[in-house]
Amino acid sequence: MSKALNIGMIGYGFMGRAHSNGYNRVPNFFDTEYVPVLKTACARNKEKVQAFADTWGYESIETDWRKMLERDDIDAVDICVPNNLHKEMAIAAAEAGKMILCEKPLAMNAEEGIEMCEAVEKAGVKNTVWYNYRRVPAVTLAKNIVDRGDLGKIFHYRANFLQDWTISPDVPQGGAAVWRLSAEEAGSGVTGDLLAHCIDTAIWINGNITSVTAMTETFIKERKHQDTGEMLPVNIDDACAFLARFENGSLAIFESTRYARGHKALYTLEVNGENGSLSWDLHDLHHLKYFNHDDESIVRGWRDIHVSDGEHPYMDKWWVPGLQVGYEHSFVHHVADFCKSLETGEECGPTFRDALETQKVCDAVLNSAKSKSWETIN
Amino acid sequence: MSKALNIGMIGYGFMGRAHSNGYNRVPNFFDTEYVPVLKTACARNKEKVQAFADTWGYESIETDWRKMLERDDIDAVDICVPNNLHKEMAIAAAEAGKMILCEKPLAMNAEEGIEMCEAVEKAGVKNTVWYNYRRVPAVTLAKNIVDRGDLGKIFHYRANFLQDWTISPDVPQGGAAVWRLSAEEAGSGVTGDLLAHCIDTAIWINGNITSVTAMTETFIKERKHQDTGEMLPVNIDDACAFLARFENGSLAIFESTRYARGHKALYTLEVNGENGSLSWDLHDLHHLKYFNHDDESIVRGWRDIHVSDGEHPYMDKWWVPGLQVGYEHSFVHHVADFCKSLETGEECGPTFRDALETQKVCDAVLNSAKSKSWETIN
Amino acid sequence: MSKALNIGMIGYGFMGRAHSNGYNRVPNFFDTEYVPVLKTACARNKEKVQAFADTWGYESIETDWRKMLERDDIDAVDICVPNNLHKEMAIAAAEAGKMILCEKPLAMNAEEGIEMCEAVEKAGVKNTVWYNYRRVPAVTLAKNIVDRGDLGKIFHYRANFLQDWTISPDVPQGGAAVWRLSAEEAGSGVTGDLLAHCIDTAIWINGNITSVTAMTETFIKERKHQDTGEMLPVNIDDACAFLARFENGSLAIFESTRYARGHKALYTLEVNGENGSLSWDLHDLHHLKYFNHDDESIVRGWRDIHVSDGEHPYMDKWWVPGLQVGYEHSFVHHVADFCKSLETGEECGPTFRDALETQKVCDAVLNSAKSKSWETIN
Amino acid sequence: MSKALNIGMIGYGFMGRAHSNGYNRVPNFFDTEYVPVLKTACARNKEKVQAFADTWGYESIETDWRKMLERDDIDAVDICVPNNLHKEMAIAAAEAGKMILCEKPLAMNAEEGIEMCEAVEKAGVKNTVWYNYRRVPAVTLAKNIVDRGDLGKIFHYRANFLQDWTISPDVPQGGAAVWRLSAEEAGSGVTGDLLAHCIDTAIWINGNITSVTAMTETFIKERKHQDTGEMLPVNIDDACAFLARFENGSLAIFESTRYARGHKALYTLEVNGENGSLSWDLHDLHHLKYFNHDDESIVRGWRDIHVSDGEHPYMDKWWVPGLQVGYEHSFVHHVADFCKSLETGEECGPTFRDALETQKVCDAVLNSAKSKSWETIN
Repeated sequence: MSKALNIGMIGYGFMGRAHSNGYNRVPNFFDTEYVPVLKTACARNKEKVQAFADTWGYESIETDWRKMLERDDIDAVDICVPNNLHKEMAIAAAEAGKMILCEKPLAMNAEEGIEMCEAVEKAGVKNTVWYNYRRVPAVTLAKNIVDRGDLGKIFHYRANFLQDWTISPDVPQGGAAVWRLSAEEAGSGVTGDLLAHCIDTAIWINGNITSVTAMTETFIKERKHQDTGEMLPVNIDDACAFLARFENGSLAIFESTRYARGHKALYTLEVNGENGSLSWDLHDLHHLKYFNHDDESIVRGWRDIHVSDGEHPYMDKWWVPGLQVGYEHSFVHHVADFCKSLETGEECGPTFRDALETQKVCDAVLNSAKSKSWETIN
Repeated sequence: MSKALNIGMIGYGFMGRAHSNGYNRVPNFFDTEYVPVLKTACARNKEKVQAFADTWGYESIETDWRKMLERDDIDAVDICVPNNLHKEMAIAAAEAGKMILCEKPLAMNAEEGIEMCEAVEKAGVKNTVWYNYRRVPAVTLAKNIVDRGDLGKIFHYRANFLQDWTISPDVPQGGAAVWRLSAEEAGSGVTGDLLAHCIDTAIWINGNITSVTAMTETFIKERKHQDTGEMLPVNIDDACAFLARFENGSLAIFESTRYARGHKALYTLEVNGENGSLSWDLHDLHHLKYFNHDDESIVRGWRDIHVSDGEHPYMDKWWVPGLQVGYEHSFVHHVADFCKSLETGEECGPTFRDALETQKVCDAVLNSAKSKSWETIN
Repeated sequence: MSKALNIGMIGYGFMGRAHSNGYNRVPNFFDTEYVPVLKTACARNKEKVQAFADTWGYESIETDWRKMLERDDIDAVDICVPNNLHKEMAIAAAEAGKMILCEKPLAMNAEEGIEMCEAVEKAGVKNTVWYNYRRVPAVTLAKNIVDRGDLGKIFHYRANFLQDWTISPDVPQGGAAVWRLSAEEAGSGVTGDLLAHCIDTAIWINGNITSVTAMTETFIKERKHQDTGEMLPVNIDDACAFLARFENGSLAIFESTRYARGHKALYTLEVNGENGSLSWDLHDLHHLKYFNHDDESIVRGWRDIHVSDGEHPYMDKWWVPGLQVGYEHSFVHHVADFCKSLETGEECGPTFRDALETQKVCDAVLNSAKSKSWETIN
Repeated sequence: MSKALNIGMIGYGFMGRAHSNGYNRVPNFFDTEYVPVLKTACARNKEKVQAFADTWGYESIETDWRKMLERDDIDAVDICVPNNLHKEMAIAAAEAGKMILCEKPLAMNAEEGIEMCEAVEKAGVKNTVWYNYRRVPAVTLAKNIVDRGDLGKIFHYRANFLQDWTISPDVPQGGAAVWRLSAEEAGSGVTGDLLAHCIDTAIWINGNITSVTAMTETFIKERKHQDTGEMLPVNIDDACAFLARFENGSLAIFESTRYARGHKALYTLEVNGENGSLSWDLHDLHHLKYFNHDDESIVRGWRDIHVSDGEHPYMDKWWVPGLQVGYEHSFVHHVADFCKSLETGEECGPTFRDALETQKVCDAVLNSAKSKSWETIN
């Protein structure tokens, strides 16, 4: 007999949809003891949140998140709002004894993140952060291959996250739709939005980063505010690149920008080890490229693994070999794993504590861009 | 206010899942007046159909499809059973005044197909056949590009559908799981299962086929029956290739096999016209390759279109540019189009009549393989 | 001490350049006992052949090929002229005791080819036909992989040769530059020009072809003659596709056209066997794709072999791993192998006899296109 | 009537072969007034240089390069020896009034480079440095596209040069064969060997670099000397990555390593501009990828330009569209351009002065890796 996991969702934007779809699809494809129930959707705008609730099948709505936290029929709170609101909501939710699924990045900075970690750990509530790319099957497979040692000692890691949607100076800043261009709400630009993904995956696969040196740039210095029309200085990073060293001795380069014409969401990663290499690319997320130096030399070459076989992570739940899954499946997998973790009592990574590590690297990166020197991460 | 489209599903196999997922997801992503309601799922095995209904949220079950046809609360019947049962069910459903969504291929042969067409047309019930690949956004885009004349006169069409799952002689035949290897239930092998997809798309994009010459092969002559263990002759085509001519003067080659090691579901198509060419591949279904001869010569080259922009067919309903959709989305699109067709009163292709054209080509192909001569299609 | 292999070249066109470059470069890169010496270049147009000789370093010129055959200082004759002249020259060269390197296809048809084979065999002169693609390192590697049995039983072979240079109706026919569009000089269109390459490689890798069924088309029915300006019927095949069966039980499809917009010289081949598959493509001739079913399943995928390592065929003679060779190297390899065959006394395939087999398939293909029925090859 | 350009080559290694092949092939493919004549080859080892001269057709040999400089029949000196010898030879050659074609990098460091520039400029002798990748047709095409403004304002540049040949600790250092692993002879590791190429192309395409911050690593700290067998510290950089800013405001990342398993000579570059992007890769050097934002949005995508058409740089000299050239052709093009520059009196870039700019960046990179801070380039 299945047990309900009653969800209270705060927010109704892009990520609200992605998460809701995740909750909805788990019972169709995964056989978990705990099954998500879309109990309530919460946002200040009553009309909009009602429309969202209708679309996704939430049983009720709330317009005050603090009130939602008081409800006994909510087991878990999903925080899907701009970054500057994460801390307050997460701490309150923890204090209310709710489990928390928090959108990434964890917080505006590591300082906030530490408070949040302490809150959930003190309250003993299950917590996870939606770094969804860990659960793209090809990325999970990459992690498994590295973990079983196939690559040997790692020498290099490199990751890019390239977009091109802010090249036009006509893109405004501010407001609900484009809060990502506002430092007040987003904390940073590409660093927290895009590089945070790259860093989370990197730490997961390759261990901790110990030092970085970075540069950032804001190519378009002023943009109109979308609500007021006022021309305001842009105070987020349009582009950021950094060099890094990992605890395991490997070197890394990371780069992100919203000014790479022709790339929409090109998150690529590559790992080079003594015995092999792996590379992956979000634009073809169902492939993993793998070079195995142990292959006989005359027939050695990069393998293009079509990650669609039943033996690949998560793929036995979907269709048949050769038929690809897409972007949203990563969220379904996260929900399924969260449900399973309720059964097993294990953590469902990345926890707040895991995500804090990423936050620290982001902070160091932004600091280094200002100080123009290497920064270490403790 | 939305209107219910009450679905009665017959079958619970692979396609039963794909269609159910289609029905379930339309209201989350598409804004249609008619909204599918999973009213009942029907199959002989009560236990299995109940489990299926529970997973997908069907309100009730039936074990006798004829009884289901008598129910007033069923608007549309979805036929998801082996090919040899399509005709009987479809005709009965038409006579009961139900709309029909029939799994492909339409029938065991064109003769059956004609009866089915006559039944639905006489009854005046809406009907469609699940040739889902038409609604992969990249394939729809290809159709649109051809339709607006960008390629000019078409010279060549080629399509392959390559798999490798029956290479082992240990794969059995017969029974529910592997009825595709049995001529009694499937009608044919790769011709009806795989080439039918290629032919449907080809006719849709490039018009009717007028003549073919074909060869077929059964590489493994005998396989055990999975229920009885008896070694029986294999009477379906493991592989089929044919040459074809289209009404518009273009030439074509088609090939399908389940013996192409390394290919899981490699449906590829290419069209070459006077001014441009297009190619597509199911293993990377979110890409469309396009060569435009009108590009300036020194920078001319095949374009790799990442079909994930809001302007691409269906893609405004999903995520943001750069984020890919997968296999199952083609079924969601089919359901959405079916719902919209109820609003507009237009047909939702391919209709039975459209699918009959594909059936005729399949028949001609199989006949040609036997007669070893060119066969014409009327 | 090296021995001279004195070459007498007939012709100075595209192939004359490719072969001359082959002769010139062998001593720079290969260590062979016999070293080609460009003794004389022969053609009717004295001025043009003199310019050609100056460019390539031929020691002398001739304007009468029969006179050249009388010279004692010519060891080998290279026939680089339109197909309708091969037979006469080759037979005369054989009778004069000269070795022969004949441009492909061997002849206008198998009947001519038989006479030519008989002539060289009677004279006991070394002979070879310039099917150069055998000696692209990646193709040679493919042959080696198949020969050592890595693919197991072969089920499928497919090859295409796609071009787009005759789509414009303004391309003329006839004369030296475009003799390939004239049946009188070329014998056929794409069949002898392009498919002959595909067939030669196929037979080499996969054994003899036993039967075929074909279709051909001439899309533009009339073209101006380039010298006279007269509008004349086009009597060659613009496009040709055929189905085939090999002696080893495998099935094949072959296609060639000069109307595939976007493809300049896209010769692709693929072989599917029980345990693996191979594919190759002339537009990236330094790659070989290889699927090995014996790889561990979760990391199985098509390997992209960059054929540039010292262990790959011929590659130890060139640069270092990662640095690619190009089109013309295939001719250099052919010359090097021809020189080595003088040392070893072995044949340098494809011999006239080998090339006759390809000619027979071409004849059967053209016959089948006319008869509209399967044709067998003896 | 052609004029001789008499070449005196110093060295006979890998680059000696590549350059010699360049000299030899120009008269076969290019129609230049000045034609290279391989006058003499010079090296200390008489036997080896004689063998080299025999292979490539040098008319004579020398064992003392200073003596060669005294010869009147030498017009140009080609310096193909380890980096620590460039300065002395180049200055002496300039003083002897010889033109100089110097292998890259120009010198051990910028200080040396300045002396060399002054020497050639004082002597007024034509000079060029063999940064051959500029003359890969696809790279030249990239330059042309950027120069005519198609990309608009440039935001990003990134380049990698990845190899894997020193991963094994058994690779020795020192001596003629592996002088690249010795700081005394090479000056640096990957920075001068590989990144210098990336920097030369970057400056050529995107203008000067103004500041950098870098990290280097030596993964294997000790290697045996290949002659003495003694275990010695490795004092070159195995890997180097740096961030950079260009004068035009764009940002860049550069990385090179000999520890990227699976990459043999993977030099990749990418440029992102306001209106378009370009990318290129040495492993497929005959392709250029181009994204043109001005293309109609629904059919917009990265174009894969097969740089083999007659309108592409240098390609009218070779074969026909679709047929690719390889690595060595870049040297042939350099020689052809050098010959043409004698005719026109223009410079043949990169001159020593151009190459000095690259040297300055290399110095800044190595300094930054030590200082752990940003370094500026004047």
